[in-house]
Amino acid sequence: MEKLKIGIIGLGTVGSGVYKTLQNIDMVEVVKVAVRNLNKPRSVEVPKELLTDNPYEIINNPEIEVVVELIGGIEPAWEYISNSIKNGKHIVTANKELLAKKGEELFNLAEEYNRVCLYEAAIAGGIPIIMPIKTILAGNKITNIKAILNGTTNYILTKMDVDGASYEDVLKEAQALGYAETDPTGDVEGFDAAYKITTLATIAFKKRVKIENVYREGITKVRKEDMAQANEFGYKIKLIANASIDEEGNADVRVHPMLVKQDSMLAHIDYVTNAVQMTGHPIGSIVLSGPGAGEFPTASSVVGDILAIQAEKGTTDYMLPMMRCHHDSKANPVHIDDTVNKYYISITAPNAIGVIAKIGTICANKNISLESILQREVSENNTADIIVITEKCKEKLIKEVVQELDNCTVNSLIRVAE
Amino acid sequence: MEKLKIGIIGLGTVGSGVYKTLQNIDMVEVVKVAVRNLNKPRSVEVPKELLTDNPYEIINNPEIEVVVELIGGIEPAWEYISNSIKNGKHIVTANKELLAKKGEELFNLAEEYNRVCLYEAAIAGGIPIIMPIKTILAGNKITNIKAILNGTTNYILTKMDVDGASYEDVLKEAQALGYAETDPTGDVEGFDAAYKITTLATIAFKKRVKIENVYREGITKVRKEDMAQANEFGYKIKLIANASIDEEGNADVRVHPMLVKQDSMLAHIDYVTNAVQMTGHPIGSIVLSGPGAGEFPTASSVVGDILAIQAEKGTTDYMLPMMRCHHDSKANPVHIDDTVNKYYISITAPNAIGVIAKIGTICANKNISLESILQREVSENNTADIIVITEKCKEKLIKEVVQELDNCTVNSLIRVAE
Repeated sequence: MEKLKIGIIGLGTVGSGVYKTLQNIDMVEVVKVAVRNLNKPRSVEVPKELLTDNPYEIINNPEIEVVVELIGGIEPAWEYISNSIKNGKHIVTANKELLAKKGEELFNLAEEYNRVCLYEAAIAGGIPIIMPIKTILAGNKITNIKAILNGTTNYILTKMDVDGASYEDVLKEAQALGYAETDPTGDVEGFDAAYKITTLATIAFKKRVKIENVYREGITKVRKEDMAQANEFGYKIKLIANASIDEEGNADVRVHPMLVKQDSMLAHIDYVTNAVQMTGHPIGSIVLSGPGAGEFPTASSVVGDILAIQAEKGTTDYMLPMMRCHHDSKANPVHIDDTVNKYYISITAPNAIGVIAKIGTICANKNISLESILQREVSENNTADIIVITEKCKEKLIKEVVQELDNCTVNSLIRVAE
Repeated sequence: MEKLKIGIIGLGTVGSGVYKTLQNIDMVEVVKVAVRNLNKPRSVEVPKELLTDNPYEIINNPEIEVVVELIGGIEPAWEYISNSIKNGKHIVTANKELLAKKGEELFNLAEEYNRVCLYEAAIAGGIPIIMPIKTILAGNKITNIKAILNGTTNYILTKMDVDGASYEDVLKEAQALGYAETDPTGDVEGFDAAYKITTLATIAFKKRVKIENVYREGITKVRKEDMAQANEFGYKIKLIANASIDEEGNADVRVHPMLVKQDSMLAHIDYVTNAVQMTGHPIGSIVLSGPGAGEFPTASSVVGDILAIQAEKGTTDYMLPMMRCHHDSKANPVHIDDTVNKYYISITAPNAIGVIAKIGTICANKNISLESILQREVSENNTADIIVITEKCKEKLIKEVVQELDNCTVNSLIRVAE
C-alpha cells in the first residue's frame, strides 16, 4: 500500500508525541516538520533534513498530502491551514480555538477544495468522540451532552474536594505541578471548555453553534464550603460543558460549575481525566472517558485521523464520505436567562429569625419549588447560613430571587444537573 | 445520494428497533424483512408486502446490497450469512456467538468475496467500540481490556451488593423482571461475555483469539458474604472479561468474577450498564460505557454499521478500507494456570488456633506475599473465618495453596484486579 506523505507544523508536546508514534507506523511518511526555532533542544530526535523553520516548505510542497497543524491559536494557524487547503491538502489539527472561532469558514473552504479537516485531538484529547459521532453513532439524534472537557479545572475541583482546600491554594499547587499555567485564565475561566463544547455540540447536533452564543462561567468563585456542602447533599461540583437542543433546533450551550449527583458517572471523573456523556435516540446515554490531554493520548487521536485519511488513499475517489463536516443550518441560540435549571444557593442571613420564611415566600411567589433547605447553626453574631436547592425553574426567576434577598449575602449560586 | 437497499433477517427485539430507527433515515431502504412466523403480532408495523418467511427472498435478491442478520445462534444464521456473502452482499450482524465460533471463516469468506461484515452491536450493545478501534484508535497498540459485557450478571451482582441479598434470591427477582432468562446459563456462567471478549480481543490485539482458549467462570458461586467482605476491603465484585497480550503475542483472555477497586471506573458500572476499559499506547487508558443491550441501544449500533456502508456506496471502489477485518496471525493462548493474579480467599478453619500461622507458612513456602489478612471473631463451635488477599502470584501456586489447606473449607477464591 502506498505511504501517505504528511507534513507537521509544530513540534511541541503534541507534535513530539505524534512524531514518536508515527515511527512505529509503516503507512505514513513524515516528509517535513516545521518548527519556530531550529536550534531548540527537544525530547524527540528528528533528522536534521526533515526540519525547517519555514512552514511554506510544507504548505507549498506538492508531494505532501496531509498537513498536521499543531501550533494552536488563530494566527498564523489559520493562514497555514487555509493556504494548505487551497494547495489541495487534507488537514489534521488539534486546534480547538480555531475550530470554535473559524470552524464555519474552515469547513466551507475544505468542501470547496474537496478536502477534509479532521480534529479528533481538539476535543477531549485521546477520547474517541468526533469520529464515533460521525460514523457509528450517525443514526442517532443526540439531544444532550454533559462533558468534563478541561483537565486543569477538573484537577483543581477534585483536589478542593479531596483535601478540603480553597481554590487559591489548589491553584498554586497545580501551577507548581505544571497542571495549571502561570496565567490560568484560559482554563479556569472556562474558555478552553467553551471552545471544545462549541465544536462538539455543532458536530453532535448537526447544526452550527457559535462561540459567541456559548454562556461561560469559570470555577474561580467555587468555595471550599460549597464543595463540602455539595457532598453532604449527595453531589460533587464539576465544571460541566452542557449542550442541549430541542425539536425546534434551539441550542442551549454553556460551560459553568455544576452540582452532579454522586452516583452519576461524571461525579467519578477525577483529576485530569475528561469525559463526555451523550444522550439521544436510539442510543440512550453513553459516557466516554479518558485522558483529555498529554503528549501521547493526544497523539493517539492525531494519528487516528491521519490513518483514516491514509486508509482511503488507494481508492479512486479519495472521498472520505463519513469524515466530512456539513452544517448548512445554524442552531438557534438560547440565552442563559431563558434556560431552566435546578439551583444550589448558599445564603448568609443577618438575622436568623424569619429568614427561612422569607426565602420560602420569595420562591413561592415565583412558583419555584424547593428540593432541600438546610439552616446551619446560628453563629455568635446571630447570622445564619442557609443552603437551598431548588426544583427546576427559569434562570431569569432565580436571578430575581437573588435580587430580592436584600439584607442577605448570597455566597454562591451554582446550577444543579438533573 | 442513492439509497442503500437492505434486507433484515429477524424481527425480534433488535430487529424491531432497527426497523423503527430506519424509518427516520432517508438514505436506507428496507426492501425485505424475513420472519419465522408471518402471523405473529408485533410491536412494530411493517407493510405486509415487505414481510416474508423465506430468508432466501433476501439472500437471492440481486437488488439487496446489505443483509442484516438479527436471529442469533450458529444455524441457520451461518447458512444465511455465508450464502449472502457468496451472493455479493455486505453483512451487518449482532451475532456474538457466531462471531466467536465462526469469526475466522466468516471474515475469510468476506475478504474472498470483497465484502465487509460489520458487527458493532454484537459487543457491548450501543457502546461505540469496534468501529473506534478500527478507525480513530488504529494507531494504538492495545495491551489490556477489562470489560463488563453482560448486563444480566452485572444486574445480579449490583443487586446482591446493594441489597445484601444472595445470588439465588436476586436471580429469581431478575427473572421475574425479565432481566434474566428462564434458563440463565448463557449469562450467569459467562458464555455470553466469553463470546464477546473473544471477538473484542481479536480486533483490539489484531490477532485471532479462539473461543476454546478463553477461560470462563460464572457468578453462581459468588456469595453475599464475599460482596460484603469485598466492600470492607475497598472493592466491588464484578464479572470481568479480561484480555491481555504481551510483546510475544501471548494472549491471556478470560471471563470470571473479579474484585475491582471501589475508586476505579468499572466499580461504578451498575445494573445493566456495560463498559469497556482499554489500555494501550499511545492512548493510555479509556473507558467507554453505556447500555449493553436493549431494542434501541442495539439498533444504534446496527444502524451505524449500515450507514457506514451507505456512506461509501457512491464511491467507485466501494472498498470500506478501515472497516475490514484481517487477522492473519493467531494469538498464542495462555493457560489460566499460567496467569498471574492477586487473589481473595475466604476460608473457614475448624480450629482458630494456629490457622493464621498455617496459612502464612503455606504461602511463604511458595513465595506468595499477603496484602491483607483478616480473622473474623471465632464462632461458638470454635471455627474461624479468615479472609486473605494475596499479592500477585501464579494461578498454579494458588491452587496448590488451596489443596494444602486441608482441614479448612475454602469458601471462595476470587481473582483481584490490579
